[in-house]
Parts: sequence; structure tokens; C-alpha cells
Amino acid sequence: MPVISFKPLGKTIEVPAGTELLDAARQAGIEIEAPCGGKGTCGGCVVRILSGKVAADNLGILSPSAVSKGYVPACKTKILTDPVTVEIPEQIGKEGGQFLDETKDTCLVRPELLPTGEQLDPLTHKIVLQVPPPQLADGLSDLDRLTRTIRQQEDKKEVAYSLPVIRRSAGALREDKGKVTVSIVKTPRQYHITGIEPGDRSERNYGIAVDIGTTTVAVQLVSLPSGRVVATRTAYNDQIDCGLDVISRINYARKPERLQELRTRVLKTVNNLIKKLCVGNDVDPGDICNAVIAGNTAMTHLLLGLPPEYIRLEPYTPTILEAPFFTAEEIGIKIDPQTWVYISPAVGSYVGGDITAGLLCSDIAAGSEEVNLFIDIGTNGELVIGNRDFLMTCACSAGPAFEGGGIDNGMRAALGAIEKVDIDPETGRATYQTIGNVKPKGICGTGMISLLANLFLTGWLDEAGKLNRRKESPAIRVKGRQAHYLIAPSEESASGKPITISEIDIENLIRAKAAIYSASSLMLAQVGLGFENLDHVYIAGGFGRFLDIEKAIIIGLIPDLPRKKYRYIGNASLLGAYMVLVSREFRQRQLELAGRLTYLELSTDPAYMDQYTAAMFLPHTDINRFPSVKAMKKQ
Amino acid sequence: MPVISFKPLGKTIEVPAGTELLDAARQAGIEIEAPCGGKGTCGGCVVRILSGKVAADNLGILSPSAVSKGYVPACKTKILTDPVTVEIPEQIGKEGGQFLDETKDTCLVRPELLPTGEQLDPLTHKIVLQVPPPQLADGLSDLDRLTRTIRQQEDKKEVAYSLPVIRRSAGALREDKGKVTVSIVKTPRQYHITGIEPGDRSERNYGIAVDIGTTTVAVQLVSLPSGRVVATRTAYNDQIDCGLDVISRINYARKPERLQELRTRVLKTVNNLIKKLCVGNDVDPGDICNAVIAGNTAMTHLLLGLPPEYIRLEPYTPTILEAPFFTAEEIGIKIDPQTWVYISPAVGSYVGGDITAGLLCSDIAAGSEEVNLFIDIGTNGELVIGNRDFLMTCACSAGPAFEGGGIDNGMRAALGAIEKVDIDPETGRATYQTIGNVKPKGICGTGMISLLANLFLTGWLDEAGKLNRRKESPAIRVKGRQAHYLIAPSEESASGKPITISEIDIENLIRAKAAIYSASSLMLAQVGLGFENLDHVYIAGGFGRFLDIEKAIIIGLIPDLPRKKYRYIGNASLLGAYMVLVSREFRQRQLELAGRLTYLELSTDPAYMDQYTAAMFLPHTDINRFPSVKAMKKQ
Repeated sequence: MPVISFKPLGKTIEVPAGTELLDAARQAGIEIEAPCGGKGTCGGCVVRILSGKVAADNLGILSPSAVSKGYVPACKTKILTDPVTVEIPEQIGKEGGQFLDETKDTCLVRPELLPTGEQLDPLTHKIVLQVPPPQLADGLSDLDRLTRTIRQQEDKKEVAYSLPVIRRSAGALREDKGKVTVSIVKTPRQYHITGIEPGDRSERNYGIAVDIGTTTVAVQLVSLPSGRVVATRTAYNDQIDCGLDVISRINYARKPERLQELRTRVLKTVNNLIKKLCVGNDVDPGDICNAVIAGNTAMTHLLLGLPPEYIRLEPYTPTILEAPFFTAEEIGIKIDPQTWVYISPAVGSYVGGDITAGLLCSDIAAGSEEVNLFIDIGTNGELVIGNRDFLMTCACSAGPAFEGGGIDNGMRAALGAIEKVDIDPETGRATYQTIGNVKPKGICGTGMISLLANLFLTGWLDEAGKLNRRKESPAIRVKGRQAHYLIAPSEESASGKPITISEIDIENLIRAKAAIYSASSLMLAQVGLGFENLDHVYIAGGFGRFLDIEKAIIIGLIPDLPRKKYRYIGNASLLGAYMVLVSREFRQRQLELAGRLTYLELSTDPAYMDQYTAAMFLPHTDINRFPSVKAMKKQ
Repeated sequence: MPVISFKPLGKTIEVPAGTELLDAARQAGIEIEAPCGGKGTCGGCVVRILSGKVAADNLGILSPSAVSKGYVPACKTKILTDPVTVEIPEQIGKEGGQFLDETKDTCLVRPELLPTGEQLDPLTHKIVLQVPPPQLADGLSDLDRLTRTIRQQEDKKEVAYSLPVIRRSAGALREDKGKVTVSIVKTPRQYHITGIEPGDRSERNYGIAVDIGTTTVAVQLVSLPSGRVVATRTAYNDQIDCGLDVISRINYARKPERLQELRTRVLKTVNNLIKKLCVGNDVDPGDICNAVIAGNTAMTHLLLGLPPEYIRLEPYTPTILEAPFFTAEEIGIKIDPQTWVYISPAVGSYVGGDITAGLLCSDIAAGSEEVNLFIDIGTNGELVIGNRDFLMTCACSAGPAFEGGGIDNGMRAALGAIEKVDIDPETGRATYQTIGNVKPKGICGTGMISLLANLFLTGWLDEAGKLNRRKESPAIRVKGRQAHYLIAPSEESASGKPITISEIDIENLIRAKAAIYSASSLMLAQVGLGFENLDHVYIAGGFGRFLDIEKAIIIGLIPDLPRKKYRYIGNASLLGAYMVLVSREFRQRQLELAGRLTYLELSTDPAYMDQYTAAMFLPHTDINRFPSVKAMKKQ
């Protein structure tokens, strides 16, 4: 029978010739989901043949370049008689198929800002102990002997145990002749034992960094002895059905049973991601004994089941900013249940733990003298300006458009998302590029920015966000007062339906970019600065693998500054959560940053509406603010 | 309509004439259980008419003296037209009917040993705070303001919160203009907030003292601002179905699902008692925010779900001796869920927290110079000997006979239990007295001691525990090799079946008393003392309202010492738990005692079996050890 080897998991299985690759993978214990049920239409189960021969069908769902690289849909590929080596992409998920591992593929943050090997020091360590056997003479209980051994090996601190650990102690101490691995949290005055296992399990020590966005949730699995990222997965926040933005979620949560529903929904999203990461990487969820969660203040409240109502009502007071440690079980996260979960500290109702985490990815965290602006573009936009002497922060509501929310054919940056669009100046027709080079399923944030900028530059879209009705283009269809732009016709798309963008979608995108730009401009004015005073601008956000700074300037999302001042750092909240997960020093640095941040309330500034309205143009009503865009348009 | 007033609850209701008293009580929200379903046969719903006229039926189930005092079965009593005042006995329970409140009726412990008003200091206090309203300017969260207020009012310690408290904080802080009552545990370094309620709830502060015996469970409800005992209830431990003694329970618990079953059973027993106490005394279980649990080591392990197996196996090592604090929710006790539960510390696998609690009721706790012996007679017998210079302890297995376990007509000291039996020397016939003066349902420990002693003194029972077959008595029936003694004929008993005791029952009782006596004798010998060196002997145990020392000596349960050396202190474990519940000083005293106790293992002493066998006679094979009994027999 032919032998099939699966990379990078290193699993091997023998199956009869003629077996579907999807079945072979399942027999080898590898979960590959096939959202379309194995019909070969969705591209969800795409794998890559590294060597050997197979009989693959339905290659039409893939781009020619993907086919040439050996990609096949596992559900429509039969094993022939020869040995075959198959690469399973690390990121296979239910919705959207294959995801990208941003931090692994291309870490966008300056390496000097990342924790070094010496700084590795997670909250929970696993230590191996040799506990002496019980004796009648000494009158010590199992826990007494365990405590003595810990105090001998570590330090003479008080040792505290949770009830589930105590329940497992008698068995664990006797299973491997007194050799046990304990999970230990070292606080200044106490050791807290959060887990006990027989034998040496010190290598089975994983952590998760979790970023809970209003629209997108990301979970990163980290091997803690090394600090190495094992894999990352993202999914839409299952709360989306209850409202697209923070305010509508807060309103939804006003009834206790609905607060409970929102809590259950986000837990489901997080736990599903954890489960997939564990199955895909052969990790036992019980071996995940460190966790850091970063999210905006409302998301954190909903996750913990705290009523978020007062975040929305004056004087905008959340229940907590810095949360104490809770166990994974108390919160409802399905990892080692007694693990202490670290919740990234918030600064105010609208500047949450995602920002204090994200800031760690900028030079602001390094205590630079230079004045830096940090912009996190999500459903809520948050801004921080400052250097080692001052730190101001504010928030604005951008909406979920850049993450694909509220846009008809919008999607997040996942397999099949259009991430780049070029426009033929003559015909107005689009050529596009998708993530994974498969048939397009929708368009993600970076795709939309690329599309808008190029439509604008080529004159097919005007300053007010209206499509050109004067010149004829096969891509523009007018229906009553509304026009649509066709990006991919039905015969090219994965679903068989055309992928379009409407003027309503475009207006949503303009609102989003106007909120970000005007907030940036206003905050700078409030501290007596202008954009010209900035040394660096950090752009964070989960809307794509990359951000084309040029295009973002063209649509007026960010100011028209020398391009070298910009640094795109991707999902900074997730990467910051990772840093905090692996390093005690970074946890301290984050707490210091949080303590230094001063919150500015923009909505009470009388100039706010004027600034916002002025930014509701491409790139801006005052084109002189964007000299390079003005120059491009003139060409 | 006639008005019915219920004492001592002070509830009043108007009902139409002709209403059953049981229904009237239910309409007033007072739960009176009627185990026989309202047929008027069980006596479970007996209440007392203090004033007014009623039409009562089925008075035949009560003794004439009870009827003359105004007792009636509530289910068979109709309200007439006049106002009526009814006294609801505090103790109404499902099985056994009306119970006795030992510690309230007659506290058997020297008053000097009890905590004084100044010593009242429970683990959890309720304090009232006025928290300032939220303000945009200060940037403080709800919890920040709460913490500041606590630190201003109390001391500058760290303040820790549980997640459920945080969940309720936003609402509680806004409901009564910032006035809240918090439940606070003050440890040397931290304040732990275990509850938060709007307004001033400081008076609604209750505690429970719980004694978990192998056979009997007792729960006492205490009002904490005053330290006053509200009521006490007892019930059989629902684990009895899984084995009568500690060893059989431990064997039963070897499978994880059976350990879980035992845990669930004891929790059910405790929670039922709590529920009844709360309903009967108009207390909300959520207002019980202090709890102390005393039990032997095996019972504590089973309650916490810890595998008890190693208690039974050499070298007899329990998982824990001094347990940390767990929340009521973690343990499964249905009171204020975040309450920290104090578990009375154990000394060894067979000397548990019941003994360290019980010792507080003796002068041993007062640091006396006199040599005292403390004997706790339960299913396990535990002994402590010592004074302020030394403290030794040991345990023996007596079995459940004195609590009515393993005895055909045995029952615990509850309504209808025969607690005293006199024997006519001529006819051998019994006259008896029951608790509550109702028809007898069975015989409790004190009744059995009284019965055995009097049968022995009158010559109807011999030294070996055999009934007299040579003289004819209508009370003795011989069936094959076994004889039975008739205490109450069928026409007198509550069930309509005769109440008897068999020679097998008597043998069980002799084994029980022999275990206690021989262990006492052996422990004294091991420390180089004899009974004559004892200044005082404290007898503890839940087997009755009182212990007739004279009768206990006659059967050889306790040594033949001058009667004034004896002090019967009842359920000392429960009373000790009460002391520890209300007073920090007593918690410290108990920990000191536990630390000083040295455990002696009797089973390894070669003299053990000889001593035990010699004690298997009434009162003892060596009658010279019991000179006063010898003298009585000669008369």
C-alpha cells in the first residue's frame, strides 16, 4: 500500500491505492475541515503535494499559479500507488479556509522590541520535583511533603493550592515514585500551585496569546520552554450577530441573559480556535498553562460577564481597568482549568488592553525621545501619541468596514480574500490578487484600500466616493441612484456570484477612514502638535497581511507624511499579548505604560464634528493636506 | 375570618374557619413537612396550640402528657372561628420529626470555656461603605473607587476580589447611591472581598457550624453580629447507604465515580439541613457568609472529593491535614457562594478536625495543669490525654451502634427515640421514656446504655451479653440460639411494630464499648499512667441529649472513677466548630492544640487485642476494675 507522509506534523500512514487524501489525513488523526462537505467547491481543504503522484480533480477552484505549485483540494485527490509527501497548511479553519500566520511569516515589528531568550519568563512555570515517600513517623500529609519539597527546591515562601490540584495530589505523588511536575505561579509573597502531573512533563508547557477584537478574534499558540510561536488562527467574533460595533453590543447586553449570551458567544469563538490549534498541532489543551488576553474594555467586560452598560453612559466608568487574575475555568476558557489568566490592563472605557499590548510593538515602549503616533485601526480606532515624557491616548469609532464587516462582499484576511486590486484606467476593469491564489470569496481591508485608491487615481471614483457615471465601463452598473463596481464576475468567483462593491460600501469605508484621520488630527492639535512634528507613525490592525501605506494615504486614511516615517506592525495587540505571555519584564513594562497613559475624550471637543466632516472626502476636503496625492492626480 | 399567629416566627395569617392548620402554615410561608402525607399517623408535623380553640384529631399518636400541653398534629387540626396562637417547634425535619437543640437547651460545657462577647470575630465581616460616585476626571473604575474606600475606612492593605463579586459591583454601587455592604475576610496581608450588596445589609450576617460525623451530620445556624445560636438540626449522613463505618466508605470510594457519589451524598445531607434551617428561621442562604466544618479526616476528604484510599493503607497518609480555605461554591455548600469555608484542622488519618474542635470544649484547651482525658464516642472513637505539658491522641473503631447504626430498632436522638429504660426486676418488663413524650419509634444511644445497664443490674442480662433464659419473662423471646428483648410492644409503638433488641444488637454494643474502654486503658498505659491519675474525664458524642455516667460505668464503657471527675459535653465537635466560627482567638487556639497533639498508633501495640478481648464483658472480665459495679451486683 502507498505510504503517505504528512508535513510538518511528521505523521505517516499506509492506505490502499485509490483512497481520498482527505480520508487518509483523517485516518492519520489530522483534522482537515471540508466546509463544502467534500464536493470540491470551497477550497477549504487545500493541501500541497510536495512529492509523489496523485490524481487530483476540481483544480478549477485554484488559480493556475497555485496548481503549478502543487496545491490540490484534499477531498478530490486520490492516492495512486507511489509514496506521497503532503504539506498540510498550518492554518485550516472552518470559515474562510486557510488563514495566515502573520507573526510567523513576517514579523513586522523591529526585532529589538521583541523579548530575548533571557527575558523568557512566563507567569506559570512547570517545575519537576522529587517528593519523598510518605512515612508514618513524620506525620506529614501528602500536601505537607509536597510543600516542603517546593520550599527546599525554590524559596521559603508560602505555598497555596487550588482544590482541583489537591484532588489530584495523592494519585500524582504515587504514580511515578514521587516524581511530579507542578505548574507554579510565583508572586512576590506566595507560590500558587495551579497544576500537578505525575512524572516529568516540563516540556509540555504551552501558552496562548488571545486578541479579542470587536470583529475578529485571534489566538496564537506558543511553546513556552522556547517562546516559539507554534501557530496562529483567527475567526470572526461570534458576537457579530448581536451587533457590529461596541455600542450596539453594549446595548444588546443590557438584559442579563443577553450579557450571558454575548459571553458564551465570544467564549465559543476563542475555544473553537484553541481546539483547532490543538488538534492541528498535536497539543493537549490541558498542557496550555499560560494565557494572556488582550481586548478593548467592552470586549473584556463581555468576556468576564461584567455588565458593560456604564462604559457607554456618562461618565463612562468601566467596572475594571486592571483585572486581577482569574482561572481559565472561572472565565470559561478551555485550557488547563486552574491556569491563571492574565488580562491585559485597560486605561479607560475606550482605550483597552489591546492598546496597552499593542504599544509594546512600537518604539513608544522603548522609551524613545522621538514623538511617535500609534494608530490601531479596528472597529474602534485607538490612538496614542507620545514619547518618554508624555503619553496621550484617545479613541474613535471607525466601524468594522476594514475587517470586512458591514460590506456586502467584505471578509477578513483569509484564504480567497482579494487583497490587491488594479484598475485599467481606460476600461475601468479590475485585475486582482487573492490570498492563497485561489478563486476569490470576497474582499478584505487591504483589498478595499487598494481598490478605492486605484479607482480614485484612475478617475473612476470621485472625491465624494461616487463612481463615474459619465464614462462607460463594463465594471460599473448603475441601479437607480446607486452604482456598483464589479471586481470579479460570477464565473471567476468561488461562490459563483459576482464580487462587487457598492457606493454604500464605499461610504462606509470613507466614514471609517474619516474617523481615524480626524481623530489623529484632533489629538495632535490638543497637545499642540501637527503631523509634521511626528518622527514615526505606527499603524496596527488586523485588516490584512500588509498595508500599502501609499494607498492608505491616497484615500486619506493616514496623513501625507514621508513614507519612511511609517511602520505597519500588523495585529499589534496579538503580538503584544505574545510578549506579555512569554516575559515578566514585558508585563511590567506594559503596566508602566498603562499607568502613564492620559485619556483624552474627543467627543466633547467642539471641533470634532467639523474635522470629521472635512475628512469625509477622498483624500480630504482640503487637498493641500495631501500634496503628494494632489500631485498624483495631476499626472 | 379567624387570625392565626405563628410563634416564634411572628407571622400572622387570616384563613377561613375549617382550614387545616398545616395548610394555614403553608399559606403563611412556613414549611412544615408531613412525612405521612397528612394522614395524621407519623407525628412529623406536631405543633403546639398556645391559645385559642382548634378541632384536633388523631391525638392518639401523642402521649397524654403531650396532649395536655397542647400539642396537636397540624395535618389533623382544623381552625375554628377564634384567633389561635400556634408555636412551631424550631426543629422540624423529614426523618425523625422534631429534633433537639442540644447546645441551646442545655449547654453542657463550662461557660468559662465559651467565647465571650469581646472575642466575637468571625472570619468574614460585613462592613458598610459609602463609595463616591464615578467621575470622568479621575479615570477610576468602579473597583478602583471601591478599593480606595475600603483602604480609607480599614487599612492600607491590598484588596482582592472574586469574579462573581466584580460582576455584581457596577450594579451594587449604583443601586443605593454608592452605599454598599461588602463581605470581607481580613488576612494579615490582604483584604478579600467575598460579597457585595447594595445598601446596609450588615445585620444579615449568619454563619453555620457543621459537624460531619460518619453516621450523623449536625448543622448549627448562628447569627453573627451577636454570636447567638439560631437553631440546630441533625440528620443521618446520607453516605450510610454506602457503608456503616469509615473503612467501608473508603473502600467504596475507590472508583472515582463512587468518590463523587459519596461527595454528593454528604453535600445533599448538609445542604438539606441548611435549607431547612433557613426556611424554618426565615434566613436567606445567601446571608450565610461564614462556615466552619469539623469532621474526621475521612469525612473531610470525602466532602472535598479527595481520594481517601491512602488513609486506610500503610503508612496511613492523608492528602491534607490542615486544608486551605475553599469557597462554599468550590466545595458545593449552598450558602453565599464566595464565602471562605474554614475546615477544622486534622492531626492524622484517624484523628480529625472533629477532635481538634471538640477539645476546645474541655479544660485541655484552657491549658490546665490537671491531667484530663477526652473521649469522643462516635462511629470512630477518638481519645486525647494530656495537660498543658503534653497531649497524646489515638483512635479506635467503635462502630455506629451508639448512634443507632447497625442496630435493628436503633435511631439517633430525635423525636420518638427511647432514651431511658427501666426494668422491673421481677417480671423483666420495660418501662421507657421517649424524647418528646410521643409514641416510640426506636431507641437511641443513651436508651441502649440505660437498657443494657438495667438489664444487667436486674440479672436479665449476663456478663457475656446473653439474655436470661432460665427465668421466664414476657419480654424475652428465644428463637433458636438467639434471644430478643421486647422494649415496646406493637400496640405502643409509632409504626405498629414491636421495638426489640436482639443479642446480636447487644454484641454490637459490647464491641463498641469494649473498643472505647480498651483504647482508653491502653493509651494511658503507653504514657505510663493509670485511670487513677486522671483529674477529669470529658465524654463527647452525639448519641443522646445526656449520658447517664452511672449507667455507662455499669456497662463498662468508661472506667469506674469517682462520678464527679466526669463531664459529659455532648456533641463537642459541633460546639467546637461554633467557637471557631465566631472567634478568631479560638481558631488560633485550635491550631495551637492541633500542633501540640502527638498521635499514637494503637493497632501496632501487641497488647491491643488482649485488652480489647478482656473488655468484651459487662462491665469487664476483671470485675475488680469496676468495684462500684461489683458492689451494686452484690446488693
